[in-house]
Amino acid sequence: MSPTNHQVRLAARPSGLPQPSDWNRTEEPVPAPGAGEFVVAISFLSLDPAMRGWMNAGTSYIDPVEIGDVMRAGAVGAVIASEHPGFAVGDHVYGDFGVQEYAVSGGRGAIKVDPSLAPLPTYLGTLGMTGMTAYFGLLDTGRLKQGDTVVVSGAAGAVGSVAGQIAKIKDCRVIGIAGGEEKCRWLIDDLGFDAAIDYKTQDVRGALREAAPDRVDVYFDNVGGEILDAVLTRLARGARIVICGAVSQYNSTAGVRGPANYLSLLVARASMTGMVVFDYAPRYGQAMSEIAGWMSDGRLVSREDVLEGGLSAFPDALLALFAGENIGKLVLRVS
Amino acid sequence: MSPTNHQVRLAARPSGLPQPSDWNRTEEPVPAPGAGEFVVAISFLSLDPAMRGWMNAGTSYIDPVEIGDVMRAGAVGAVIASEHPGFAVGDHVYGDFGVQEYAVSGGRGAIKVDPSLAPLPTYLGTLGMTGMTAYFGLLDTGRLKQGDTVVVSGAAGAVGSVAGQIAKIKDCRVIGIAGGEEKCRWLIDDLGFDAAIDYKTQDVRGALREAAPDRVDVYFDNVGGEILDAVLTRLARGARIVICGAVSQYNSTAGVRGPANYLSLLVARASMTGMVVFDYAPRYGQAMSEIAGWMSDGRLVSREDVLEGGLSAFPDALLALFAGENIGKLVLRVS
Repeated sequence: MSPTNHQVRLAARPSGLPQPSDWNRTEEPVPAPGAGEFVVAISFLSLDPAMRGWMNAGTSYIDPVEIGDVMRAGAVGAVIASEHPGFAVGDHVYGDFGVQEYAVSGGRGAIKVDPSLAPLPTYLGTLGMTGMTAYFGLLDTGRLKQGDTVVVSGAAGAVGSVAGQIAKIKDCRVIGIAGGEEKCRWLIDDLGFDAAIDYKTQDVRGALREAAPDRVDVYFDNVGGEILDAVLTRLARGARIVICGAVSQYNSTAGVRGPANYLSLLVARASMTGMVVFDYAPRYGQAMSEIAGWMSDGRLVSREDVLEGGLSAFPDALLALFAGENIGKLVLRVS
Repeated sequence: MSPTNHQVRLAARPSGLPQPSDWNRTEEPVPAPGAGEFVVAISFLSLDPAMRGWMNAGTSYIDPVEIGDVMRAGAVGAVIASEHPGFAVGDHVYGDFGVQEYAVSGGRGAIKVDPSLAPLPTYLGTLGMTGMTAYFGLLDTGRLKQGDTVVVSGAAGAVGSVAGQIAKIKDCRVIGIAGGEEKCRWLIDDLGFDAAIDYKTQDVRGALREAAPDRVDVYFDNVGGEILDAVLTRLARGARIVICGAVSQYNSTAGVRGPANYLSLLVARASMTGMVVFDYAPRYGQAMSEIAGWMSDGRLVSREDVLEGGLSAFPDALLALFAGENIGKLVLRVS
């Protein structure tokens, strides 16, 4: 095979925000697939806050990316060569293909997707891992009940925007916390949230008192830090906090800020529970078809923020994510 | 009625450890009971870390003690006069009678106890609220399963020592964290704990790695602070943390230290849940009889640390509690 595969590899473990020197650009010929393998030409890469954690050394819910390895990333693309019985040339697939233009896969974790049902980037977002995270985090970990008051942080982001919409579909009162007026307007006007709090200009604790007079039954937390502490002061009896992420803390060089108000869990007989979407893999199919149904009914809006610039734009795209520049799911077009 | 009732009232809301000036001593004649009331002569007062929280202003799981009010306390004593059909002179009763020598009660929350079955102080400890807290915290909130590895902090205290013993009865591996060699020896030699960690001389995180090689399934937390953070690094998949209290934080003037390692909840798919014993009032009877059975079988040891000195010793007794000077349940003999 003739084309060249450009790649972005981890050069160093960052301290704080990833620097250009933390990345290495490499290239190599696209290999031919071995027996039981296929080669995919990547169209879009998923940009996820979790990537920052994968760059750190040490055990977590997943092995770290090793120095010198191609950076881990979810991606969608088209099969261009195959020796795998389950994947044919021309198939579109989602997989953990990495920050590169072409990937060789043995099919593990790869899922065929249908670009006639939804645009490819949607399979990285609402119909992909982000959608699954919102769905299972809210319904399973958060044990959402009809009529609950639900607060979502990072509410204009990929996971948060889907979580809030699912809570609306389930007849809950939904309050989104996001940064900036444009995001807050989108939550109310386009997604139907009951209230939105702009943490950049509003006092979150005071705004919550107004927006959630009956306190908070479910808090879907994507950010941690001060916002988590604010919501902890407004828990209803028996509240459930879903710890999905803590994007405010991932690039902290001063260490993670623990929730100083955690004793509210005692006062409210509340719980704080961590979730990792991979645990739900056997139920992805069911969740995808339910979400797809809501999308086709017009009850759930999927928004993707597609960055151009190809592979070389990846380091800046990741920084844009941490700067909160995206609305909806941030993806990078590779080819 | 002729006797005088001495009382300890809250004079000021403390900052940090309660000072002598935070208390007022008063006296008044013991009133006669009105219709539907009885008068109890208090024998023993319960000393509880939670008392510190009751001294603060603001909403919590229970109303604060107001300035000028008799300090709240659980107590046991004997009925000396009664106009209540359910309580006769000579009955022994437990109730929320306050830091005083005599109390008038309408019977709400009062429970008759039998001093021929167990010494009166035991009804403040293992057969009282502390025992109930250990029982329901571990079995209900902690969802204890046979074979779990269980860690208890404040393990030589009133709640911790019962919680650890219940976990042993339920065939768990039990590790106690306590301050000082004497306490640690008691946990191992007298209570049958599998391991004890002296947080005053040992590195808790390293000691846990040795004592809980398969990590921690249930953590019963009475202390918060650094110890909570250490245990968070050693959670097993699906671990349950029971937030019963945070005695290390109650007298902090620098604000509560939040658990900086709380993102371990995500990695371990673990939960942290607050509990308040009062919620289980309808099931106290069942728990008391089960605990009493374990005591009479010799499977559960109840230890009370009885301070003498009467009511005037109350302020120092509370400080002794926060200094961790007691082993087992700390009570104050009033008469």
